Amino acid sequence: MNNTGLSKATLGRLPLYLKCLDGLPRGTANISSTVIARMLDLGEVQVRKDLAAICGTGRPRVGYDTGVLYQSIKDSLDSDGACEAVVVGAGRLGTALLEYPGFAEYGISVSKAFDIDKTKFSQSVRPLDELKQYCLSHQVEIGVIAVPAQAAHKTAELLVECGIKAIWCFASVKLDLPADIIVQYENLALSLAHLNHRIKSYN
Amino acid sequence: MNNTGLSKATLGRLPLYLKCLDGLPRGTANISSTVIARMLDLGEVQVRKDLAAICGTGRPRVGYDTGVLYQSIKDSLDSDGACEAVVVGAGRLGTALLEYPGFAEYGISVSKAFDIDKTKFSQSVRPLDELKQYCLSHQVEIGVIAVPAQAAHKTAELLVECGIKAIWCFASVKLDLPADIIVQYENLALSLAHLNHRIKSYN
Repeated sequence: MNNTGLSKATLGRLPLYLKCLDGLPRGTANISSTVIARMLDLGEVQVRKDLAAICGTGRPRVGYDTGVLYQSIKDSLDSDGACEAVVVGAGRLGTALLEYPGFAEYGISVSKAFDIDKTKFSQSVRPLDELKQYCLSHQVEIGVIAVPAQAAHKTAELLVECGIKAIWCFASVKLDLPADIIVQYENLALSLAHLNHRIKSYN
Repeated sequence: MNNTGLSKATLGRLPLYLKCLDGLPRGTANISSTVIARMLDLGEVQVRKDLAAICGTGRPRVGYDTGVLYQSIKDSLDSDGACEAVVVGAGRLGTALLEYPGFAEYGISVSKAFDIDKTKFSQSVRPLDELKQYCLSHQVEIGVIAVPAQAAHKTAELLVECGIKAIWCFASVKLDLPADIIVQYENLALSLAHLNHRIKSYN
């Protein structure tokens, strides 16, 4: 089944569904969206919609064949294909991303960061000079910007020259890039501000 | 004006509007949402909605009084009030958060991390034993979980004991906490997976 256009929220719940199915007693042939919703403490309507988008509707009163459902979810996760991303900027954030354990779950490898600071070079932190060669030979599609804001524009332009298709930008800037480059901004300050806003609205 | 219920997206654009107004030539008395939209390369409808939520509608053909608009946006940002957050876990991610420059823009201070590893202690990284005393004496409202997944539950329970009202959780777990504790999960892997998904859908 084609998963083009799955929402970020649905995509985020797919590994949850896999874990839930993984944990079922051996020999469980069928499972309903109601049971999955209860196990994961999610809304039933939400689960039904998610699963329908991936695997069609289950059989009335029987639910889904667990094997078919498992495979469909796995296919949906895998259909985006393996992907390699490089990080530019090997400061604390950049190196934290290199060590972040969750990317592999989505078939994404983040194994190299590039920097201009010689003192940071190691097996996983390489000189910025090597970026282009690395991107081209490894068909890297995503570049992560973890440099200070003032260096972000130059970094973005360099990544475009290296043939990447998308940029994940942690710097607080607005990039001006060719229209076919997908840019996603990660504003951690905004996430925290939003949480503060929720506390104040809640009280 | 009460900003309860501003969306995360609107909230995120408020500093942009401030910067835009800051950059106007001295003596600019009025500005329209159309001009602001053009300056920031945003949709006009979006800007009009954002500003209406904060400052009501501008005068037809005149727009907003720049001084009034500036103050309204500033009040909206400030009305959530200053807030202090503590980080538990002084690994690369935790210390990256301590150094992240954008929080102050939203009136949020993130100045201390707590850890059990003595070798990490410094002025900004304190022993976990000091967490409770610090939270109570500084009226800390937000706890950031930057520990490995297996330590996340215990950390969350400790933060609740310390009187925090909200948790920002970077660990890939689902926390089971009292209903009055607001929990916001930050799944960086999911953000990157979503970007990969966008590339594949785009091609």
